[in-house]
Amino acid sequence: MRTSQFPLSTVKEIPADAEIASHKLMIRAGLIRKLAAGVYTWLPLGLRVLRKVEHIVRTEMNKAGSLEVLMPALQPAELWQETGRWEKYGPELARLKDRHDREFCLGPTHEEIITDLARHELKSYKQLPITYYQIQSKFRDEIRPRFGVMRSREFIMKDAYSFHLDQESLQATYDVMYQTYTNIFNRFGLKFRAVIADSGSIGGAVSHEFHVLAESGEDAIAFSTASDYAANVEKAEALMPEGSRAAATQTKTLVDTPNQHSIEDVSSFFKVSAQQCLKTLIVRGEDDTLVALLLRGDHELNPIKAEKIDGVLSPLQFASDEEILGACNCKPGSIGPIDLSIKIVADRSVTLMSDFICGANQDGKHYQGVNWQRDLALPEHIADLRMVVEGDPSPDGNGQITIARGIEVGHIFQLGTKYSEAMNAAIVNEAGKNQIMVMGCYGIGISRVVAAAIEQGHDERGIIWPNELAPFQVAICPMNMHKSDRLIDTVEKIYKDLTDAGIEVLLDDRKVRAGFMFSDMELIGIPHRIVIGDRGLDSGTVEYQGRMDKESQNVEFDNLVKFIKDKLA
Amino acid sequence: MRTSQFPLSTVKEIPADAEIASHKLMIRAGLIRKLAAGVYTWLPLGLRVLRKVEHIVRTEMNKAGSLEVLMPALQPAELWQETGRWEKYGPELARLKDRHDREFCLGPTHEEIITDLARHELKSYKQLPITYYQIQSKFRDEIRPRFGVMRSREFIMKDAYSFHLDQESLQATYDVMYQTYTNIFNRFGLKFRAVIADSGSIGGAVSHEFHVLAESGEDAIAFSTASDYAANVEKAEALMPEGSRAAATQTKTLVDTPNQHSIEDVSSFFKVSAQQCLKTLIVRGEDDTLVALLLRGDHELNPIKAEKIDGVLSPLQFASDEEILGACNCKPGSIGPIDLSIKIVADRSVTLMSDFICGANQDGKHYQGVNWQRDLALPEHIADLRMVVEGDPSPDGNGQITIARGIEVGHIFQLGTKYSEAMNAAIVNEAGKNQIMVMGCYGIGISRVVAAAIEQGHDERGIIWPNELAPFQVAICPMNMHKSDRLIDTVEKIYKDLTDAGIEVLLDDRKVRAGFMFSDMELIGIPHRIVIGDRGLDSGTVEYQGRMDKESQNVEFDNLVKFIKDKLA
Repeated sequence: MRTSQFPLSTVKEIPADAEIASHKLMIRAGLIRKLAAGVYTWLPLGLRVLRKVEHIVRTEMNKAGSLEVLMPALQPAELWQETGRWEKYGPELARLKDRHDREFCLGPTHEEIITDLARHELKSYKQLPITYYQIQSKFRDEIRPRFGVMRSREFIMKDAYSFHLDQESLQATYDVMYQTYTNIFNRFGLKFRAVIADSGSIGGAVSHEFHVLAESGEDAIAFSTASDYAANVEKAEALMPEGSRAAATQTKTLVDTPNQHSIEDVSSFFKVSAQQCLKTLIVRGEDDTLVALLLRGDHELNPIKAEKIDGVLSPLQFASDEEILGACNCKPGSIGPIDLSIKIVADRSVTLMSDFICGANQDGKHYQGVNWQRDLALPEHIADLRMVVEGDPSPDGNGQITIARGIEVGHIFQLGTKYSEAMNAAIVNEAGKNQIMVMGCYGIGISRVVAAAIEQGHDERGIIWPNELAPFQVAICPMNMHKSDRLIDTVEKIYKDLTDAGIEVLLDDRKVRAGFMFSDMELIGIPHRIVIGDRGLDSGTVEYQGRMDKESQNVEFDNLVKFIKDKLA
Repeated sequence: MRTSQFPLSTVKEIPADAEIASHKLMIRAGLIRKLAAGVYTWLPLGLRVLRKVEHIVRTEMNKAGSLEVLMPALQPAELWQETGRWEKYGPELARLKDRHDREFCLGPTHEEIITDLARHELKSYKQLPITYYQIQSKFRDEIRPRFGVMRSREFIMKDAYSFHLDQESLQATYDVMYQTYTNIFNRFGLKFRAVIADSGSIGGAVSHEFHVLAESGEDAIAFSTASDYAANVEKAEALMPEGSRAAATQTKTLVDTPNQHSIEDVSSFFKVSAQQCLKTLIVRGEDDTLVALLLRGDHELNPIKAEKIDGVLSPLQFASDEEILGACNCKPGSIGPIDLSIKIVADRSVTLMSDFICGANQDGKHYQGVNWQRDLALPEHIADLRMVVEGDPSPDGNGQITIARGIEVGHIFQLGTKYSEAMNAAIVNEAGKNQIMVMGCYGIGISRVVAAAIEQGHDERGIIWPNELAPFQVAICPMNMHKSDRLIDTVEKIYKDLTDAGIEVLLDDRKVRAGFMFSDMELIGIPHRIVIGDRGLDSGTVEYQGRMDKESQNVEFDNLVKFIKDKLA
């Protein structure tokens, strides 16, 4: 392609509503244009990237034996009523009526549609397992669409659904999909993590999210330095610390601590680390009770873990100052477990504390030198209450936890019989009896991948695409080509040689100065740049520079195709 | 592919709502499934065909230098209000409100969206001409969706839009698109015609429809036996017949014709051909007048031509019996031009009639042996009023008209400044002044092509795909493969050889009898079938049969790849 045939739409202005790098760069590089809030047109350059994502996903899904279908965006309300989601799904569901007043929605997902298809098409266990997928536009009426195509109202998803006779078969396909997703994200050329998203009640993980790692990611991910373990920070288990509690060396002493409320206050008052302080938080429990949660001073409460504790209200609610005064005889800031009459739940690490400081349940007073089993009994209820931190042992027993930020672009999920049960999607099993099918579902946010790739790969000059997703792999920037016939011939030959070798080349044939070309090519993120000028004609070389290279290097004409191919390999 | 990995979804039942062959066959062959009235899911087999249509269209559009984009389905009402179409477009426009009560529609077409894009992206005449296209789902809330994907509510279109500085540039791109469409339809392997759809007021045609020829087509097309001329029958001009009027040989005589009203009655009563009879029709004109239209008895009125006559009401309205009695003193069936006091318009062929029969404006009486200029003056107003018939001279002067039926699947159109004017889509011209752009638009009904191909190619056994659109080009049907290891090896080798040669093969590895395989492969329309059995192993041959062949022929293993490649060439 030449810029004369494939005009660039780069712009200088950053749209006022663009908060994150990918949104700004997608507009500036001319990948997308906004039509309405959360509704975007893909320009030719952006569409090339989108199609590459689609192509990789399609190829790998086909390899895994999935069957591509194409379901409608228009979905009749009746099917959503069968699963109860017509009522449950909030205003995110875009609803409309046809001219005959029949209700439809614009599909944000297709469980109902595929389950309806499956209950009609699948009759015998012999047809199982089977996985259908599609790549298609989805709709979600976000209350606040933002971040460009990252959270838009019309977007492109790959969604897949598998049907099985039993859980064992689902697990087998789930494992294949896990591997397929790993292959897909590897082919994207992106740094990613498969993250445990939820723990099944029966045996092991039933849901994984695939996150593209990027500093701007919405989610914090805890992953192991030594294994494949990765989980959303909220889901990552903090193990019972190894080792045993140190012996008591201090005596329990009541100390006046006027105006010392927070852990920070108290630790600096006593000149000890936050680890030596006990944090006591009061939350509401069932039947108007209160519950005290104990954490080591340097640890943070994980509300998702806390609200799963028996007797604690979910979602988690902190007690008011009045409630605390009623239960503890003091204000928050001086609470402690000694002589506390409400239910107490201690985080695992708390059990290993010794000679610690805690509130005395008297305003302006703390105890120092407190020790379990001497000054008070160990709480009956011990649980994992805290957020994991870097350096924690990995929950799978291998290595330590590191924390990174990620953008969720894929999700695989063992649905079980939620939809097949509600919609009576059954097949005849080997015994000749009707049996409800077991289902899995597997999504990738196709348009989101494009934005996530930019979040991972960009600098102050623009986008940095991996080779596999770049709209063009190579940019040719000729210097003053229009003034030199000799240069034109060479440029055309190089362009032809590279193109013939199957390399996607963008030849910048605009009559603009070099700096202008370079900044456009850097903005749109072409990974490899070749500069040719009259000087190079004499030496028979071009100047090559990778998008991330600090300096250029000379490459001989004859060696260029091989050189670029090596760069792309 | 093997049927074990790519299961067929053929069914015996014909859906009750299927009226035409393509609808029935698309369901029976397992290409589509209905989700709601006019809303279909594409199954894997159907999607393969759809993708081939898309691929051919995309390749040729790219070759023509068009730029692919992807616009949203969700379109804000504001843009449609700018062009006035928000009000004008009927209930076919699917409208919805978002959670903030803002109005949107689901795009049935994208003129407003692309014009909005163009007015922002295009600033200078140097950027013109430019053509954008997309392949995307469209929505039309049909009052009565029918014929499967032929007239559905959600369907896939390729729509393209070009922008120009002037009419000359539009005409040039229009000509390129005409050729591109011709290439596309040729690559489909379908019999088609480019049909003049409307005549521009300034110079030549400004709109062509591309019709796939099929007996079941909704439209009748008149085309020349000797040239490229083709037009919708309603639009085809009937030229002034060559030659001159024969001399009078009979005397005008008043004849009693009791109960002889229609041309058929009268011609059989007088024992002459309908050509000898004059047909007089009375229609309403402006200002409460009536107008008499004269046609040769064997010709049919073309209402579209008639309502374009000066003074005739549009849409055409026939006069009531009372109005006719008032103007002609008789009932319809006895009207004639002699002594008629209302405006008379004669079809061109009427002027060449001699010794003809016509009504006498007296009930139950006709004149015989009537001659122009002797018995009555030639009407002042001569016009083209009739439908063309087979054998008429082609309006372009080359050859004769033949009539065939077609299905409209493409349309190219010179829009002019309709949208660009309304939306103020202007660029700066060479003189530095703002200038409204001139536009063209170019559509192909991608999903409709699939149905049209089946309307053109099917028989009582099923679909007959052209090689280019077939979901698979070759079917391999092994006889009792599962009982013979020797056969398995040969089948696998043949399958591999053909696949390696880039041929799309469906290997039927089901344990079913031959007849069952054959009828499935015929139903789904695979163009080339290879049967291999134990007998063939001894002779080293397979039985080949083309979908349309009456008999099979033996082909040697070694020659098979070349043989099939020749068939596909």
